[in-house]
Amino acid sequence: MISVAEAERLVLTTVRPLPAETVPLLAATGRVLRQDLTADRDFPPFNRVAMDGIALVFEAVAGGQITFPIETIQFAGAPPQPLQNPQAAVEIMTGAVLPPGTDTVVRYEDVTFQEVDGQRTVTIQGLPERAGHNVHARAADRHQGDLLVPAGTRLGPAEIAVAATIGAATVLVTRLARLAIVSTGDELVDVAEQPLPHQIRRSNAAMLQAAAQAAGATTEAFHFIDDQDVLRQGLPQLLREFDAVVLSGGVSKGQADFLPGVLRELGVEQIFHEVEQRPGKPFWFGQQPGGAVVFALPGNPVSTFVNYYRYVQPWLRACQSPEMPPAPAAVAELVTDVSFRPRLTHFLPVRLEMAPDGRLLAHPQRAGGSGDLASLLHCDGFLELPAEQTEFPAGQVWPLLRFRS
Amino acid sequence: MISVAEAERLVLTTVRPLPAETVPLLAATGRVLRQDLTADRDFPPFNRVAMDGIALVFEAVAGGQITFPIETIQFAGAPPQPLQNPQAAVEIMTGAVLPPGTDTVVRYEDVTFQEVDGQRTVTIQGLPERAGHNVHARAADRHQGDLLVPAGTRLGPAEIAVAATIGAATVLVTRLARLAIVSTGDELVDVAEQPLPHQIRRSNAAMLQAAAQAAGATTEAFHFIDDQDVLRQGLPQLLREFDAVVLSGGVSKGQADFLPGVLRELGVEQIFHEVEQRPGKPFWFGQQPGGAVVFALPGNPVSTFVNYYRYVQPWLRACQSPEMPPAPAAVAELVTDVSFRPRLTHFLPVRLEMAPDGRLLAHPQRAGGSGDLASLLHCDGFLELPAEQTEFPAGQVWPLLRFRS
Repeated sequence: MISVAEAERLVLTTVRPLPAETVPLLAATGRVLRQDLTADRDFPPFNRVAMDGIALVFEAVAGGQITFPIETIQFAGAPPQPLQNPQAAVEIMTGAVLPPGTDTVVRYEDVTFQEVDGQRTVTIQGLPERAGHNVHARAADRHQGDLLVPAGTRLGPAEIAVAATIGAATVLVTRLARLAIVSTGDELVDVAEQPLPHQIRRSNAAMLQAAAQAAGATTEAFHFIDDQDVLRQGLPQLLREFDAVVLSGGVSKGQADFLPGVLRELGVEQIFHEVEQRPGKPFWFGQQPGGAVVFALPGNPVSTFVNYYRYVQPWLRACQSPEMPPAPAAVAELVTDVSFRPRLTHFLPVRLEMAPDGRLLAHPQRAGGSGDLASLLHCDGFLELPAEQTEFPAGQVWPLLRFRS
Repeated sequence: MISVAEAERLVLTTVRPLPAETVPLLAATGRVLRQDLTADRDFPPFNRVAMDGIALVFEAVAGGQITFPIETIQFAGAPPQPLQNPQAAVEIMTGAVLPPGTDTVVRYEDVTFQEVDGQRTVTIQGLPERAGHNVHARAADRHQGDLLVPAGTRLGPAEIAVAATIGAATVLVTRLARLAIVSTGDELVDVAEQPLPHQIRRSNAAMLQAAAQAAGATTEAFHFIDDQDVLRQGLPQLLREFDAVVLSGGVSKGQADFLPGVLRELGVEQIFHEVEQRPGKPFWFGQQPGGAVVFALPGNPVSTFVNYYRYVQPWLRACQSPEMPPAPAAVAELVTDVSFRPRLTHFLPVRLEMAPDGRLLAHPQRAGGSGDLASLLHCDGFLELPAEQTEFPAGQVWPLLRFRS
C-alpha cells in the first residue's frame, strides 16, 4: 500500500500531452492553447481617441488660446483627417484615430460650442493636464510581435477577446481527452430500467461522465457484468481507442473482483493497487505500455467520487497542459475538532462557507460511509487530512478537494 | 447617475424565470433543476453488504461460536438466499443483499476458510463489534419519498449521480437564456477580416459570447453600423426573439451614439443610464414592457468586461434559478495601498493568490485604462472599491468580481 502523495506522483508520471487540433475561436473557451498568440499590430494600432470631445494641439492651449474653430468632425471607423491649421480643432469620437497634427483630446464635458457666421467654434473650460491627455497612444499597451497568450494557457473570455482582436478566427488547442467510463457489477441496471429488489441503477458512470465532461474530456459509457470472459473480450478495444479507461467496481477482495487479474492478462502493467486512504483505498492504477492509462476505482460512490477528483481530474488537466504547473491546491479551515484514528489519509466531506475576511471555512458533514451517495448533495468538497495525524483541531487549515463552486 | 448597488437592484427587478425544458440526464450538468427529485426507494434499497466477507448471526458469535459452516455464496446482483441454519454463515460480496436471517458481516481480513470432508467452514479471528457491523442498513441514508434535490438546484456530478440512482433518465431544467450579442461601431471589422489602419476587429462580441456561454446561455452575435436607420430596422427582431439583448458601444456622449435614442423610439423603457463607477460608467439599461431586457454596455473592452460580470451574469443566474438566493459575494484582501479619488465605485483589476491560511490575496495590476484589453490577460478579477472611500489600505477585504478560477 502506498501513500496518497506517492499515488498522485505515480499517476502523473503517465501524463502524455494530448495532440492538438484546430477549432473555431468561439468553440475554444475552456480549452488549452497549443500555439503562442502574438500581437499582429500595436495595441492600440493607432493613437486612439479615448473620449468624445475635440482634438487639438496642446501647445496652443499652453500658449493661452481657449477658443478654436472646428475644422471637421472625425468619427470612429473613418480614415483620419489631418488638422490643417494648428490653431484649430477637430471634433472627435471615442475609438477614432487621433487626427494627425493634433496630440490632445478635451472631452465634451469641458468645452462649449458656438456658431458665429456659419463657423463652428469651441471654447475650452477645463484645460487639459498635459499633451496626450485622453489619447490612448499607439503601442501604449503592447507592441506588434509581443507575446500575448503563451501556449499552454487555458482560454477564458479575456483570451478569446484578445484572440479575436488579432484575427485568430480559429485557434490550435489541445484535443479533448477521450475517456471510456466503465461500470462493472452484476447488481447494476441502466438508469432507464426498473431495478429488481436486489439491484440498483448505475450512478457512478453518470457521475464520472458529468465530472469528466465538465473538466474538458469526451466520454463514452460502457457496462460489463462480473465475468472474466466478458471483461477479456470487451476491454481490449477500449484500451486501443481511448486515452484512459476509468472503471468503477471490481477491484476489491471479492470473489467477483476480476479486474486486476484480467487487466494484467491484457498487458496492462499494474503501477499500484491500494492507497493509504479512506474512502477509496482499493484503487488500482495501471498503464498499457505506450498506451491507455487505467484508473480502476473502487465502486462505492463516495470512493469513486474522491478518487476521481484526487487522481483522474489532475491527470486530465496535466494531459491538456503539461507545460503549465498544476494550480496551487485550494485550502480550507476546519471549524470543528475532528478525530480520525486509522493511519490513512482521510477525505472528510465538508460544506464550505466564506468568512467575511475571505477565509474558506469547512464544516464537516455527517456521512453514512462510502456508500452514502446522497450525503454528497450537502457537501462542496473533501478536506484531505493527512495519515500521520489523528487529531485535527478546529482552526487548522488543510488541502481542499472541491467539487462544487 | 445612480450607484452600483442601485443599478444592481434595478437590473434584478427585471428577472423573469425562464421556461423549463426536458433534457437527457447527461446533458443536464450545470443546468438548473425545475422539478424536485425524490427517493423512489429507500437509500440503500436493501440491507446492503458493505465489505467482502461472511454474513452470520451476531448472537451466535456473541454466544462464543467462532467456526461456522458456509451454506452458500451470495454475489452482488443475485437474488438473496436466506440463511437456513442460524449456526452457519454465507460468504458474501460487497453490494450484495444481506442474506435474510443474518445481521452482521465479518470481512475477509478477519476470517480463515478451511475445507474438511467437502464442507467449507470459516473461523473468525476478529470478532464483530456489534450486530449490523459492515452492513449498510436499508433506509440508513434516506427514506423512500424523501426530497433529495429541490427544484432550483444547479446540477453537478453529485446531483447527476443521485438522479441516475432514482431513474431520472431525463430531467426538467431551466432552458438556457437566449442572448443577442450586438456590437456597434463603424471602426469594427470581423475577426476573419484584415482591418484598415483606422479599424480594429470586434473583440467584445467574442468576449461576451464566451462568457455568457460559460454561464449557461445560448448566444448569437450581430453587428450594426452606427446608423440610426440600420439600428431601427435591425433591433426589433432581436427584441422579439431573445430574452436579452446585450449591446456594446454607442451609449456614450458621441455624435454617433444613437442607441439610447433609438431604443426609446422602439419602445424600450430606459431604467437607467450611467452608473457611478469606473470603468463602465455610460452603461444604459432598459426593458421592453413584458419583453426583452436590454443591457447597452459601453464599448471599451474593460468596461464591457466589468459590466458583464457585475450586471449581466447575475441577471442570467437569477433568471435560471429565481428561487435560490444569489451566491454570497466572494471577497479578497488587498495587498498594497490603493488610492482612488473620484466619487465612483472603482473596479480595480487584480491578480489573485491564495495565502497558506486560505485567504484570497488581491494584487492590483497595472492597466492602461478601459481600452487596455490585453491587461485582462494578467488579471483574475476586479476588486469592487466603494465610491465613498478614497484610500484603501493594504489588508482590507473587498468584494471580488472574479472572471478566472
